[in-house]
Amino acid sequence: MQKVEVDLGDRRYPIYIGPDLLGDQNLLSPHLRSRQVCVVTNTTVAPLYLERIKAALSGCQVDVVALPDGEQYKTLETANRIYDALLTAKHHRTTTLIALGGGVVGDMCGFAAATYQRGVNFIQIPTTLLAQVDSSVGGKTGVNHPLGKNMIGAFHQPQAVIADTAVLRTLPDREFAAGIAEVIKYGLIADADFFRWLEENMAALLAKDDAALSLAIERSCAIKADIVAQDEKETGVRAWLNLGHTFGHAIEAAQGYGKWLHGEAVAAGMAMALDLSKRIGWLDAEAPERLADLLGRANLPVYAPAIAVEQFISLMSADKKVLDGKIRLVLLKAIGSAVITDEVPRADLVATLEAMQAGT
Amino acid sequence: MQKVEVDLGDRRYPIYIGPDLLGDQNLLSPHLRSRQVCVVTNTTVAPLYLERIKAALSGCQVDVVALPDGEQYKTLETANRIYDALLTAKHHRTTTLIALGGGVVGDMCGFAAATYQRGVNFIQIPTTLLAQVDSSVGGKTGVNHPLGKNMIGAFHQPQAVIADTAVLRTLPDREFAAGIAEVIKYGLIADADFFRWLEENMAALLAKDDAALSLAIERSCAIKADIVAQDEKETGVRAWLNLGHTFGHAIEAAQGYGKWLHGEAVAAGMAMALDLSKRIGWLDAEAPERLADLLGRANLPVYAPAIAVEQFISLMSADKKVLDGKIRLVLLKAIGSAVITDEVPRADLVATLEAMQAGT
Repeated sequence: MQKVEVDLGDRRYPIYIGPDLLGDQNLLSPHLRSRQVCVVTNTTVAPLYLERIKAALSGCQVDVVALPDGEQYKTLETANRIYDALLTAKHHRTTTLIALGGGVVGDMCGFAAATYQRGVNFIQIPTTLLAQVDSSVGGKTGVNHPLGKNMIGAFHQPQAVIADTAVLRTLPDREFAAGIAEVIKYGLIADADFFRWLEENMAALLAKDDAALSLAIERSCAIKADIVAQDEKETGVRAWLNLGHTFGHAIEAAQGYGKWLHGEAVAAGMAMALDLSKRIGWLDAEAPERLADLLGRANLPVYAPAIAVEQFISLMSADKKVLDGKIRLVLLKAIGSAVITDEVPRADLVATLEAMQAGT
Repeated sequence: MQKVEVDLGDRRYPIYIGPDLLGDQNLLSPHLRSRQVCVVTNTTVAPLYLERIKAALSGCQVDVVALPDGEQYKTLETANRIYDALLTAKHHRTTTLIALGGGVVGDMCGFAAATYQRGVNFIQIPTTLLAQVDSSVGGKTGVNHPLGKNMIGAFHQPQAVIADTAVLRTLPDREFAAGIAEVIKYGLIADADFFRWLEENMAALLAKDDAALSLAIERSCAIKADIVAQDEKETGVRAWLNLGHTFGHAIEAAQGYGKWLHGEAVAAGMAMALDLSKRIGWLDAEAPERLADLLGRANLPVYAPAIAVEQFISLMSADKKVLDGKIRLVLLKAIGSAVITDEVPRADLVATLEAMQAGT
């Protein structure tokens, strides 16, 4: 078992990483504040893993909220179902919520934990690779609003995260690949050695080898934890984590959310960010080529779908990372070295958008 | 003008207290983070004071959300109206929310500020005495749920509080008296000299003398700030602030919320807490008599309405201060000296409940 300590002052917490950790009572019980527990999960994940969690919680009052599966349910109304369940079963301030599922379950359970009786404890058991390497660290919780994604939320750190590599065997291939996109991102922004390791070990990862997965998750969480610890409230280096995301959000918005997975849009977005970095002279041709090769081997897109350039720029400008109307982008000076800039010449951005669409 | 500094580490903020502060641009403008402002108020307060606030914000983008007036609107649905307004008018993370109204407006505006884009700044301009001496300090924000009051919320500190004593002249007498109940509470739990000052100056307070009001608000906020600074997340001494509240919440719940004002229920609850303190031998007869006299002069109830004892105890057990099923109460060892206990003999509690109902 690997362990990453996320060090956020008085809110230090561990991420446990390895196969078959899910039902391990010894990992769960030290992080329960009382014998009251509420497991928040969804109707896809519950049949697979809920019984093992319950067995590990024997002796506790365990209530369960199984939400419908899908980003379209990440709303205040669905969060209200969690409050209903907690109040109906008389959960006190000392209760512990357990998020068992992917990013949507984690975000909503975390938001309910942040706001139930002004904040209760929670433990995350992410069941997708994306949630294991992304939502595990950073304390972002929240729900969507009809006028914008993640517009209602709070920062709330979990007591512990349990990232079980064995559960990834039941994850659909596309979702697994979407998680790999974020893993690749960590190498790109902060760790050239890790990027090289990914190039050498992609086959083992795709075969869901536990040792390779554990190492990849450990490195990803450690890199994110290091960045978040430097910048908990997202004012500086934390923006590195958005590599590929401003392009990616525009792709998701243009297509309607749900057609491409978030990780797929980020994959194409990262390829676009590296192409743009090359155009403005920060990178030579080798880095974009290595990324394209790696994304291709992971069955991830390298090109955006066809979107008119003006619409693409307009959607990028609507992203909430925009400050005072200027598009801020995360670009690379080298693999492992990210830079935030709002001074990209428009002509170069247009050239990237034209070059990096499928079929062009 | 009086000023209390609430010192919560990196979240230090001032409370300005005195007559005619409401429209003072010099108090507001240093606490705005950008030129975007959203004033959250209600339809009762807006006609009285909104124009003066707007005049003090000239040069800013000022949006206004006027909520319906009343505790029954303190819901997630109403909070959602604030999110709608913020998103429709494209408020950024750097916006500042201003709560103009009583406790309900302050709690909802604070909750929206705590959760809009994972947290934005807000300023409180409380227009009731209760809100000035209670919600001004402590960072508690939230909304009610059909199954319990304040069950959904967050801790979120304002940038500043402006407590204008002149606005209390438009406050209905019953609401003013309800605020006085909380002022009396501060004397009881932590400051015998202030309690004596209240005995000597109740007439001036009831006449809404600005100097007397300023002193009473200043002492109340200073006592609460001192307690909250010791115990920001409510694990220890902060529970003192609940003197009378476990009894009071049971009274409110038994009657249906809205029949008695919160401060009225707390007044009777404090009288019950002192009666119980006397029964278990912690107080002699003098302190409950002094309290009953002072509450009477402030036109506040000293006895609970008629409620069956078993129902009363059941409602007290449902209060969220209950830990592991035991009723925790704040009682007094002397005026100015509160103690938290969960070891009150049931027979004494029953005796207090039987003795302290109107008509018994």
